[in-house]
Amino acid sequence: MKKRVAIQGQQASFHDIAAQEFLGGDYDIVSNDTFTDTFRALHNGQANLAIVAIENSLFGSINDVYDLLIKDKCWIIGEVYLRISQCLIGLPGTRLEDIKEVHSHPVALAQCVDYLDNVLPHAERFENHDTAGSVAAIKHWGDTTKVAIASAAAAKLHDLPILAEEIETHVQNYTRFVVLQKQLTQVKNANKTSLVLQTDHAPGALYRALGAFAKNDLNLTKLQSRPIVGKRWHYIFYVDVNDHYQSTAMKTALSELEKQGCKTTLLGSYPAGAN
Amino acid sequence: MKKRVAIQGQQASFHDIAAQEFLGGDYDIVSNDTFTDTFRALHNGQANLAIVAIENSLFGSINDVYDLLIKDKCWIIGEVYLRISQCLIGLPGTRLEDIKEVHSHPVALAQCVDYLDNVLPHAERFENHDTAGSVAAIKHWGDTTKVAIASAAAAKLHDLPILAEEIETHVQNYTRFVVLQKQLTQVKNANKTSLVLQTDHAPGALYRALGAFAKNDLNLTKLQSRPIVGKRWHYIFYVDVNDHYQSTAMKTALSELEKQGCKTTLLGSYPAGAN
Repeated sequence: MKKRVAIQGQQASFHDIAAQEFLGGDYDIVSNDTFTDTFRALHNGQANLAIVAIENSLFGSINDVYDLLIKDKCWIIGEVYLRISQCLIGLPGTRLEDIKEVHSHPVALAQCVDYLDNVLPHAERFENHDTAGSVAAIKHWGDTTKVAIASAAAAKLHDLPILAEEIETHVQNYTRFVVLQKQLTQVKNANKTSLVLQTDHAPGALYRALGAFAKNDLNLTKLQSRPIVGKRWHYIFYVDVNDHYQSTAMKTALSELEKQGCKTTLLGSYPAGAN
Repeated sequence: MKKRVAIQGQQASFHDIAAQEFLGGDYDIVSNDTFTDTFRALHNGQANLAIVAIENSLFGSINDVYDLLIKDKCWIIGEVYLRISQCLIGLPGTRLEDIKEVHSHPVALAQCVDYLDNVLPHAERFENHDTAGSVAAIKHWGDTTKVAIASAAAAKLHDLPILAEEIETHVQNYTRFVVLQKQLTQVKNANKTSLVLQTDHAPGALYRALGAFAKNDLNLTKLQSRPIVGKRWHYIFYVDVNDHYQSTAMKTALSELEKQGCKTTLLGSYPAGAN
């Protein structure tokens, strides 16, 4: 039976492209407008998996998703890194000088701000839930003064020409996606662990906690602080560590953290994606 | 001569209330729509000071402002903590059951989501640049089916009734603002320092860097990672430390960080605000 994969956005969105990277094409999309709905689709059984963007190399962590990882408990079973390249997409016969409206997801609009300022300074920008959805809207409207910003795959899907490609300001535009599942399972070749760390509020607590990893030769690839709701100016830390959670080094580190009075919550162990 | 203070938003916005807390009332506002424009107003001399929100106790760090602190170099000379309490504000005679539209800043709408879902489930939500600006719009429209969410001060300024108060979901809703100046000056009673830390990319580098603070009995009240643009999955760290940057302990720590190969950039030393 085909996997049902919850994503934010629709077919040919960057979430869909990440799903293709991970699953190789044989799946059905459960399309959602928001990250909250995407997590909900996983929890209520509408989907077997969810794939959500968690960080962009230019904009940083996607806080909503970090918060949902704790709120709507689920397990990370994989990750995908994707180069994000944006295209300007319109109807056949669209001329740059006639464009009055540019439609896309707010993050895509932000990624192309230099191009828009320089090439289309007079075009108004409109925000949409989804990049691929804005291409569908352009096709539906049938108006050559309106264009969308989305993936080349979205242009292909809706059979519309690419008017300009690689219009993003920075070429180092990569997004990391995590693949989520409702139940914990052992994932083959897992060599990376994501967990949440809550230290006590004493001076040097974070330093000592990071020591538990460093002394066991565990490398942190990411450290992200987030506020604890209801305890103002207290934080939890999301960390990614380059080892399986049941390795000897990790077991030693986790036991030392426990002795220090730290609370750790496992989010999952999975194979590190190529980045 | 009166100080000219650049803020995002207008009179009676939470930024204006923070400015009042810090300066005691005797200043002129230089009102801006965005944080980028607020920093620009400071740099081009339109304003002597800027006050910007940098963190909320529920939503976390405001990444745009962290990024602007590095991009548009300026100095933090103070901080203000403000309890954020939201009011529903409308025209005289407005009845809750007739309300069709709620206007406010997206963050204010998000802070009141439970109230809106429960009490005004059928009212459409509209985003505005500014909370106080949405109250001005309500007054201008003169329509009792439209309301705004903003501070009690905004209701008072525009002489409109408060229909409901403390409608935010969490009472622990505090925002930290920083006060910025273009030139570095020694600030009296400075006992807190903000700086940016860039470690090398070696395993354990952050642990060793935090050790430079811990070993000198310096406490970190905040650690925020942000991506380095153009170097994907490499990070800088914004840290707040409980001492003046010229104290003996800080000098020792900064010199140890230099020996480790860390780059540190001072953002300012200032008196810690009451929180």
